[in-house]
Amino acid sequence: MTLKAKLNEIIFGYSTPAGRAFDIVLIIAIVLSVMAVMLDSVAGFHLRFKETLSLLEWGFTALFTLEYLARFYCTQERRRYALSFYGLVDLLSILPSYLALLLPGANTLLIVRVLRVLRIFRILKLMEYSDASKRLISALVQSAPKIFVFFASLLGTITVFGALMYLIEGPEHGFTSIPRSMYWAVVTMTTVGYGDISPQTPLGQAVASVVMLLGYSVIAVPTGILTNEMAKQRYSRACPACGQSGHEPDARFCSQCGAKL
Amino acid sequence: MTLKAKLNEIIFGYSTPAGRAFDIVLIIAIVLSVMAVMLDSVAGFHLRFKETLSLLEWGFTALFTLEYLARFYCTQERRRYALSFYGLVDLLSILPSYLALLLPGANTLLIVRVLRVLRIFRILKLMEYSDASKRLISALVQSAPKIFVFFASLLGTITVFGALMYLIEGPEHGFTSIPRSMYWAVVTMTTVGYGDISPQTPLGQAVASVVMLLGYSVIAVPTGILTNEMAKQRYSRACPACGQSGHEPDARFCSQCGAKL
Amino acid sequence: MTLKAKLNEIIFGYSTPAGRAFDIVLIIAIVLSVMAVMLDSVAGFHLRFKETLSLLEWGFTALFTLEYLARFYCTQERRRYALSFYGLVDLLSILPSYLALLLPGANTLLIVRVLRVLRIFRILKLMEYSDASKRLISALVQSAPKIFVFFASLLGTITVFGALMYLIEGPEHGFTSIPRSMYWAVVTMTTVGYGDISPQTPLGQAVASVVMLLGYSVIAVPTGILTNEMAKQRYSRACPACGQSGHEPDARFCSQCGAKL
Amino acid sequence: MTLKAKLNEIIFGYSTPAGRAFDIVLIIAIVLSVMAVMLDSVAGFHLRFKETLSLLEWGFTALFTLEYLARFYCTQERRRYALSFYGLVDLLSILPSYLALLLPGANTLLIVRVLRVLRIFRILKLMEYSDASKRLISALVQSAPKIFVFFASLLGTITVFGALMYLIEGPEHGFTSIPRSMYWAVVTMTTVGYGDISPQTPLGQAVASVVMLLGYSVIAVPTGILTNEMAKQRYSRACPACGQSGHEPDARFCSQCGAKL
Repeated sequence: MTLKAKLNEIIFGYSTPAGRAFDIVLIIAIVLSVMAVMLDSVAGFHLRFKETLSLLEWGFTALFTLEYLARFYCTQERRRYALSFYGLVDLLSILPSYLALLLPGANTLLIVRVLRVLRIFRILKLMEYSDASKRLISALVQSAPKIFVFFASLLGTITVFGALMYLIEGPEHGFTSIPRSMYWAVVTMTTVGYGDISPQTPLGQAVASVVMLLGYSVIAVPTGILTNEMAKQRYSRACPACGQSGHEPDARFCSQCGAKL
Repeated sequence: MTLKAKLNEIIFGYSTPAGRAFDIVLIIAIVLSVMAVMLDSVAGFHLRFKETLSLLEWGFTALFTLEYLARFYCTQERRRYALSFYGLVDLLSILPSYLALLLPGANTLLIVRVLRVLRIFRILKLMEYSDASKRLISALVQSAPKIFVFFASLLGTITVFGALMYLIEGPEHGFTSIPRSMYWAVVTMTTVGYGDISPQTPLGQAVASVVMLLGYSVIAVPTGILTNEMAKQRYSRACPACGQSGHEPDARFCSQCGAKL
Repeated sequence: MTLKAKLNEIIFGYSTPAGRAFDIVLIIAIVLSVMAVMLDSVAGFHLRFKETLSLLEWGFTALFTLEYLARFYCTQERRRYALSFYGLVDLLSILPSYLALLLPGANTLLIVRVLRVLRIFRILKLMEYSDASKRLISALVQSAPKIFVFFASLLGTITVFGALMYLIEGPEHGFTSIPRSMYWAVVTMTTVGYGDISPQTPLGQAVASVVMLLGYSVIAVPTGILTNEMAKQRYSRACPACGQSGHEPDARFCSQCGAKL
Repeated sequence: MTLKAKLNEIIFGYSTPAGRAFDIVLIIAIVLSVMAVMLDSVAGFHLRFKETLSLLEWGFTALFTLEYLARFYCTQERRRYALSFYGLVDLLSILPSYLALLLPGANTLLIVRVLRVLRIFRILKLMEYSDASKRLISALVQSAPKIFVFFASLLGTITVFGALMYLIEGPEHGFTSIPRSMYWAVVTMTTVGYGDISPQTPLGQAVASVVMLLGYSVIAVPTGILTNEMAKQRYSRACPACGQSGHEPDARFCSQCGAKL
């Protein structure tokens, strides 16, 4: 096995011990680098640990540059990797540091490094949770059409109620424009309720009550959709002998005729 | 085929390519016109792009007037269309512009045009999502009696707790009247929680805690109702003898007439 | 049939047209009387329509006194009615008006009349929704032990997190006592979030985030309990011939052996 | 039976009447002691009932010290008890009172006594609700992998949106650092919505709307997971041959070994 193939197995694979160790080390490095970016955004930390944080930033940049080059070197589909979501995130999370040498201040873009945190999903494969996550995603995909209908209705409702409240309450009570009223409608229907904009007139409060009760009960719709899609998934294998469907994923014999599955 | 029939097929139908294209173009026009109304409500936009927005308004009014006349011309049930919900919305969304010629300022009523956004549901038919939406609506209709009971109980609870909090907290803590206290009860039970009115006395906070826990757990009721109604729908095998639907997937005899399935 | 028996059928029954008419008229009267009490609590209405509202109050008091006397006269179990929940509410909703003749101001107690609104549940019987409501209540009763466990856990969690936040944030950030901190914990766990008390320190915000995520996901527990209890209810009749259970309430033949149910 | 064994049965067991009585008395004592700590944290009570509360504190400390010594005396696994969660809580809830004799003010640590409230779960065994709670816990454990995936995704989403809003809104609108922005993201996604930090710019409000709608609909995921896990538990027929449980009510053969059920 060539060095390239070996490196490929370590970096992209996760079946060998070395491949798993690499993934774990990488995720720890990503989490640490993201925490460094986070702490740097806190004014107190930025002032006191400016140099340490700068050093850490360059350390992580060096590490991730090496990783990027190694990935680029060992993969057989360089173009595909470079243009993939993770490939772009990998690149964008090292560029700001280099850019800052030319343009002072460009390292505020370092915040993009936060996106690397999404590689944490990789850890699911290591923990053999990918089956659970695959099923979850499959259930979400299967229920997509119904959820699309739900969101289309939600958007229509939000637009209509937003415009209505703009008419009722008007700019003097914080509903300064229809888009802002729609923002209020989203805040209210989702039961978030910041209270930065809230109806003042009795009529506005009555309409707002309708919006709240709607949002409160309408949450049942996506829950019902997803729960049933998940239930459907449980019954998905058919018996080759009698055609009985609905066997659990770990069943080895048909529960109706006893035939091997 | 006469022009009238052809026009009818294009405007009201969606089985021909022309009919589908018409629907798509119409929905785009509606969305754009609604966005124009929205932007016009933003003070900054209104001042800077007054003329462009006015032009757009007249453009859309002309377009929708033409569409309205065409619909009126080609349908065989003119009275039914004119008095239908969509027919009235279609009319109301063009009238304000003409009214503004006589009564300056009447075009603030143009906001009614927002209701045309509901035609977006039409797009569901084009995307063949109408099956998903039909099932969703059928499940909602089927669970209507239970949901009515739920809402009646909710309304009773809101009235009683609203009156109770009016007594406990009183006008000096923002609970100025029973209707306003009921508004607070809705805001709290639906877990929206603006914070514009909130209990100040220990007793009021204790009662509010009960209202919150009630609202928090009671959300399980509509969710449970709808989830089960949807589950019932999944098992919709019909009996070949009597047509009774809703048999479980493992049923071998019809539960209504005893015929073999 | 004596007058007493006839009156009893009209007032307490709902199988005859007269009985139904009585219930409908009574509910309308209750709703109107409650609305009068509500409007009277609004300062503006109280000042302008003082006399009309006072007249209305006496009208409803006279009507409900008559109804109370009639109920007391025609029932065979006077003591049981007088001491029942509805009997007490009926009495308490007329007493304040008479008390106000002796003690000026006692008619603020008239607010008790709001409780009469609970008679609205009576209307469910008229609308033949009592089956839906009976099932709903039965499902709630069946899931009571699990829901008790859920609430006991919730209460424990609220106490512990309330005490913790009292230690972390302290009186200077609004967490003036443990009971008040527990009120904050309820407001946060139920996702109401008034914002009247909110954590200011980074550590407090971190703990609050845990409380929020807990409250956000823990709502799944009562929903899961009730949904399954409702599902169980659907499968409740067993076949007398083959013992197969799980027949729909309207099934007439066993779906497994075709026997009559 | 020795005194030690008898004491053990009373204190640790709950099958004898004496054992049950002990548990009930203990729980009442715990609840009362916790209420004393709570009331002591209220400034008004602390000033007026200082001495009574201090007396109560010493009374409960004496009682719990006795209980601790008795537990320690009669158990056969002293080390295991002393290091168990409940053992540590039992110790920590008496120490502060004694410490306060040396270090004045140490009895603010008495708040740890609140943790003893968790012994309330013990009462569930007495009320024979432990079956309901065991099933609930088992369903939660079974759905742990899926819920882990859900929380990992949630955490990633919160980090990314927190960083995004920090860039969009910036310190001048309250988003002073990434950790604080993440706190906002938690407050918003869980639909708590305090309103202490809320977006001011149109772009920020648009992104916030996405976060809200995400949080609003994503609640369906844990609900769906748990509801289905509970549904699976309902079908828990075990195979007589291999012991595999979880067969559907209509299964006739074991899905693992093919034996007749």
